[in-house]
Amino acid sequence: MNECIFCKIIKGELPSYKIYEDEYTYAFLDISKDAYGHTLVIPKKHCTNMLDVDEDTYCHVQHTVQKISKYYVENLGYTGINILNANNSDAQQSVFHYHVHIIPRKHNDGLDVWPFHDSNNEIDLAKCAEELKYK
Amino acid sequence: MNECIFCKIIKGELPSYKIYEDEYTYAFLDISKDAYGHTLVIPKKHCTNMLDVDEDTYCHVQHTVQKISKYYVENLGYTGINILNANNSDAQQSVFHYHVHIIPRKHNDGLDVWPFHDSNNEIDLAKCAEELKYK
Repeated sequence: MNECIFCKIIKGELPSYKIYEDEYTYAFLDISKDAYGHTLVIPKKHCTNMLDVDEDTYCHVQHTVQKISKYYVENLGYTGINILNANNSDAQQSVFHYHVHIIPRKHNDGLDVWPFHDSNNEIDLAKCAEELKYK
Repeated sequence: MNECIFCKIIKGELPSYKIYEDEYTYAFLDISKDAYGHTLVIPKKHCTNMLDVDEDTYCHVQHTVQKISKYYVENLGYTGINILNANNSDAQQSVFHYHVHIIPRKHNDGLDVWPFHDSNNEIDLAKCAEELKYK
């Protein structure tokens, strides 16, 4: 926990470009510079991702994600929002403190935030649904 | 509303590969076959996206997203989860009934769900933070 860079950002031990803060959550700019306005929302309480976060903390994070997204559209002129979230290294998570990405969008902004462009016709949807059905 | 294909799926007027259902939400396979197990979670109550969904419905959707994600990892052998969500056409939303994408992941599954691979050094993070700061 002592080494978690997002915990250090929350405690002010590392700098960040802060966007928003409340009792439970903190939002700041992602420093990767891959998209203008790329924002991260994190809980102040450390957890790895949505697979181990407690229910209350999860709700606080989602609430802040919606609040900031609506603020960007309603007050700052953005016309779309993408939400991205990765859980575990096998899903390309790179910092192991739960975080949700907000990408504010504008018409013809040149971004392509949708990761898929091919269809795999070998996927048998009926078989897949049978395997994944919630029981 | 009558023409919304997701409303038709909920009402059973169009077929779907159902994964889960409760009083407020419905989950089924995306038919694009771009990733094995690609699942959509939608509210039964029609709304366009997270920018116009009411708070209770938003919470129900998020709760189901977490429930199914945990089920895939804890019960079905998946080792990671990606969450994707697009709001408005400028963010590449294509069906205008609020939906959250769940992509179940496994080690070396060959997918790349992260959309960004370049850094744009012209982005001035300090300026950006000043513009986006929640007021």
